Amino acid sequence: MTPDRLSSTFAALADPTRRAILARLSAGEASVTELAEPFAISLPAVSKHLKVLEHAGLIRRGREAQWRPCQLEAGPLKQATDWLEHYRRFWEASFDRLDEYLATLQKKGKRDGRKH
Amino acid sequence: MTPDRLSSTFAALADPTRRAILARLSAGEASVTELAEPFAISLPAVSKHLKVLEHAGLIRRGREAQWRPCQLEAGPLKQATDWLEHYRRFWEASFDRLDEYLATLQKKGKRDGRKH
Repeated sequence: MTPDRLSSTFAALADPTRRAILARLSAGEASVTELAEPFAISLPAVSKHLKVLEHAGLIRRGREAQWRPCQLEAGPLKQATDWLEHYRRFWEASFDRLDEYLATLQKKGKRDGRKH
Repeated sequence: MTPDRLSSTFAALADPTRRAILARLSAGEASVTELAEPFAISLPAVSKHLKVLEHAGLIRRGREAQWRPCQLEAGPLKQATDWLEHYRRFWEASFDRLDEYLATLQKKGKRDGRKH
């Protein structure tokens, strides 16, 4: 069985701390200590989150022993977006229906307004 | 704490069977039996997946006791896409870099070609 890349990506994104880490890395590379600062969690807990992100290919880590900065890797995010794009017509359709409904309400309002 | 909608959405999408169920529902509403047909898994297993999808707001189920068709609900997919869109510049940047690199290779190839 081929590794299911999309499942790893979505599973990695299903956590607010991991999403916050990615948001931080979108501003530039950072060390584990820097990444841990804004969170009320231990360094080992942050390391665990980083392992999940690294396993999903969402971050890459430097190889220097002392300074191993983390960097964002956006490839899997593109694949996730490509998958979601197939459903765009569904949410756009719901908004179209809402627009139509609001337009009908507005027309009705104007018509009722003229009656009085 | 407010329920973390994005985490529920991504967790629900982190499974190939659940993504296949959503793909099937994108072709129209279907009963649990119809949804189970293509999969080598039991009805209770399918029901479990449907509960996860329903909890994440990704499907809606009819209320009739005998015929409870499932329907796709695209709202949470839009929210997930909106979140991912913030990272678009990163994957587009990588592709731009790749394009530049390929253009450089091509130019170099032409220049080397003229030399011979």
